[in-house]
Amino acid sequence: MTELLSAAALEAELRETGERRYHHLHPFHRLLHSGGLSQTQVQAWALNRYYYQSRIPHKDAIIVSRLPDAASRRIWRQRLIDHDGDDADEGGIARWLRLAVGVGLDQDYVQSAAGTLPATRFAVDAYVNFVRDRSLLEAIASSLTELFSPGIIATRVAGMLANYDFVSPDTLSYFNNRLHQAPRDADYALAYVKANARTAAEQQSVITALRFKCDVLWAQLDALYSAYVAPGHIPPGAFLADAQPELAR
Amino acid sequence: MTELLSAAALEAELRETGERRYHHLHPFHRLLHSGGLSQTQVQAWALNRYYYQSRIPHKDAIIVSRLPDAASRRIWRQRLIDHDGDDADEGGIARWLRLAVGVGLDQDYVQSAAGTLPATRFAVDAYVNFVRDRSLLEAIASSLTELFSPGIIATRVAGMLANYDFVSPDTLSYFNNRLHQAPRDADYALAYVKANARTAAEQQSVITALRFKCDVLWAQLDALYSAYVAPGHIPPGAFLADAQPELAR
Repeated sequence: MTELLSAAALEAELRETGERRYHHLHPFHRLLHSGGLSQTQVQAWALNRYYYQSRIPHKDAIIVSRLPDAASRRIWRQRLIDHDGDDADEGGIARWLRLAVGVGLDQDYVQSAAGTLPATRFAVDAYVNFVRDRSLLEAIASSLTELFSPGIIATRVAGMLANYDFVSPDTLSYFNNRLHQAPRDADYALAYVKANARTAAEQQSVITALRFKCDVLWAQLDALYSAYVAPGHIPPGAFLADAQPELAR
Repeated sequence: MTELLSAAALEAELRETGERRYHHLHPFHRLLHSGGLSQTQVQAWALNRYYYQSRIPHKDAIIVSRLPDAASRRIWRQRLIDHDGDDADEGGIARWLRLAVGVGLDQDYVQSAAGTLPATRFAVDAYVNFVRDRSLLEAIASSLTELFSPGIIATRVAGMLANYDFVSPDTLSYFNNRLHQAPRDADYALAYVKANARTAAEQQSVITALRFKCDVLWAQLDALYSAYVAPGHIPPGAFLADAQPELAR
């Protein structure tokens, strides 16, 4: 049924997938960016997304471990450097931690991941397992959500600064670096899948991998919305604003 | 900090974990059992839980593959027989499929798992991966939610028959067998962990494994509630009552 697409048509399909399924469409993000969340709800977002951030270098190291040649490994290795930094105060994870502390969370509590929603863990771990268990082509394709992140980052930074008095430019510094890292990374991954998806089935697997990754991001926001917005069913053991200092000990 | 517990004290801890974290406490189950759901919502439950059922023999086969002696493998093998049956019309999965068709779903659509919520997949796959990646003791302990299932089954069958005119005793026949299988299986697993958790750390790992499994069940109901009850955000691509026949083709 599926036919071999030109590289340009494959790219168009991927961009359309993002337009329909990327989490910029999720109602939680609309609330986050428009000032519709309480500080506790923003904390829940920062806390849960920390778990996602903390797994990214694991995911990227798996991809490096699977790349066949030194040239491509060197390129992908940059993601490890970007995320883990050169010392404890640097890199994307450290900057996300500053964001979490900046919105009022306890650093040890965030790093313990004790209050993370189980659904966040399941979705994020599914992503790491996908990258380990599927073809290298699919593993690389699943990173293509970064094609769509500059747009959401611009909206987010402007919206959060305008709408929350507990958010400062320094708190959001994580996103400054992502604005140039994400397009560079996405360009490489997009060129890779366009060059390496050589059959209709491989092209389909690339589209399915991007759809899977959109599901991973979407499910994290569904879980946040369900626990902390409506209906507000916080699962047993997950982050509660009042219990935070106690849970942190 | 943790001390070695007697076998009886370990069992008491496990039972208390179930009292606080098993999914009989989840508001979705209260709605399901009391007649508070529409037929479409019951369909969403049956469809998503089919994915869970369909993965159980994978989980049990992994455990069989890890058991060191023929005697324990023979005992655990019974779960494969119970679930997969001796032919296509038999066993727990076939009976769950009858339940799904009985509440009005298309059999091919259910078996395709196309409408399954991503969050259901992530939670269920996390369970299968847990059983593969953790210690054998933890893998076996994660099955201990079956200690608590007879209570919920009795409530469910009585409640659903009383409250939904689209549910018949035949539709619910899956649960008849579970009423004697689950206690037999749980007794074996409980005796195993009581005999084999010999250090405080191992006992703690058993309790954590049960807590993890409770999270797996809870997250599935959170996802159902969020998508199909409130706020009713159905993620892209998931089951929609009206779209079912179309999606099934």
